[in-house]
Amino acid sequence: MGRPSQLLFLFFIVVLINIVDRCNGALLPLPMHLLRPQTGCHGHKIDGVSCLSWRFAVETNNLRNWKTVPAECEDYVGNYMLGHLYRQDSKAVTDQAILYAKSLNLTGDGKETWVFDVDETVLSNLPHYSQHGFGAKPYDSVAFNAWVETGKAPRLPESHNLYVTLRSLKIKVVFLTGRPESQREVSEANLRRAGYNKWEKLILRGEKDVGKLAVVYKSEKRRELEKQGYKIIGNIGDQWSDILGNSTGSRTFKLPDPMYYLS
Amino acid sequence: MGRPSQLLFLFFIVVLINIVDRCNGALLPLPMHLLRPQTGCHGHKIDGVSCLSWRFAVETNNLRNWKTVPAECEDYVGNYMLGHLYRQDSKAVTDQAILYAKSLNLTGDGKETWVFDVDETVLSNLPHYSQHGFGAKPYDSVAFNAWVETGKAPRLPESHNLYVTLRSLKIKVVFLTGRPESQREVSEANLRRAGYNKWEKLILRGEKDVGKLAVVYKSEKRRELEKQGYKIIGNIGDQWSDILGNSTGSRTFKLPDPMYYLS
Repeated sequence: MGRPSQLLFLFFIVVLINIVDRCNGALLPLPMHLLRPQTGCHGHKIDGVSCLSWRFAVETNNLRNWKTVPAECEDYVGNYMLGHLYRQDSKAVTDQAILYAKSLNLTGDGKETWVFDVDETVLSNLPHYSQHGFGAKPYDSVAFNAWVETGKAPRLPESHNLYVTLRSLKIKVVFLTGRPESQREVSEANLRRAGYNKWEKLILRGEKDVGKLAVVYKSEKRRELEKQGYKIIGNIGDQWSDILGNSTGSRTFKLPDPMYYLS
Repeated sequence: MGRPSQLLFLFFIVVLINIVDRCNGALLPLPMHLLRPQTGCHGHKIDGVSCLSWRFAVETNNLRNWKTVPAECEDYVGNYMLGHLYRQDSKAVTDQAILYAKSLNLTGDGKETWVFDVDETVLSNLPHYSQHGFGAKPYDSVAFNAWVETGKAPRLPESHNLYVTLRSLKIKVVFLTGRPESQREVSEANLRRAGYNKWEKLILRGEKDVGKLAVVYKSEKRRELEKQGYKIIGNIGDQWSDILGNSTGSRTFKLPDPMYYLS
């Protein structure tokens, strides 16, 4: 072979290794770029933690009370959150929620209500988490609250579509969040900025709610809504603690969130 | 370039196209082999149904009352079920169940009980479903019952590991199945053949249970267990109807099953 074709040969070998490498992340640990899936490629087995199966266990509520994303899965979760799949998974959920809402025989009595969680449900904190290891680093309340105070969380577009549909069906919207009352103003501004222009209530943790488990606090608040005459026909959140407990609503929907766990 | 290096060049082009093709299933619909993932390759977006997101919606109980696997996802589900991922996902669940069981302060009073579903939980009907479209074809009760009557369903190894652990902890095992009483004998023989040698009860649908929703039938049977003094410390199944309803047990575990839905 002449020198040009030798170079061509070398070029293709390098390209080939690069492509095959994508399917052998566990065997060839050299990172080619920062956000590299550590599993994938048709779910082939890899050594150590399978991040796909870890996410399955998380999203099905089999794995509970976990503190951080396993270090091995930081890149996997980052890829998932920044890529198409997070959005597609979200859409798979909100498509069902929209179908369900449209299938209801609504009375239009003004009491039919849908409960939305806020963070990672109607608003996305991905701009923050993308700078903090996608949940692989321990929760940093100072940094997170500084982010919240910017009021710049974008909407999760799929949830916004659901919100628009519910509003068109004259279903009342209640936002029920674990954020504290001290963040009411910035939360309201952020919601409006993100395209949520009207709601029946925005419920935040008051003084008496501090320290309660999310599942307890949210159950109590939903029970209060029912006592006030609201009928919770739907309830959506990214955490199981949003949709388990009592007064959960006629039907619940679980959005994806492999970044953190709240009990 | 000389003729040999031209051939070499062509060879690498062909190899390259073949490898890249794996990541572009939706663009290049020519099937290379029967069981080809229709998504995968790091969860890139494909046109039409995303089988990954469909499975997410199914396993999180967002998508309910579905009749068959979408036709587009037959190959995806087949790959999933026959490949490593189904087993890895199952292990991610049973690992948590084993950790949980070992963490309990057991009294050893002989009343501590774990409820197992049977099909796709302790026994696998994959030999049957692999011949019937992995759930993409409508349920065929004649063919399925003929398969059950062979008594040859293998165990799901991950569930068997859990079973062995529970037995070593002196926890009683109850099998609670939607199979009818008429299949008691063959079910018992199949369970023994698959390595489940001892159990406290095998509960099948009696005459009065025919036609009941699985979630109702199973709730009633668990309630009866509690009335008999059993304490259900754990409950595992592949269907949400195994672990929702009443008397669900102190903790529930959801195994993967993208092949069928029972309400």
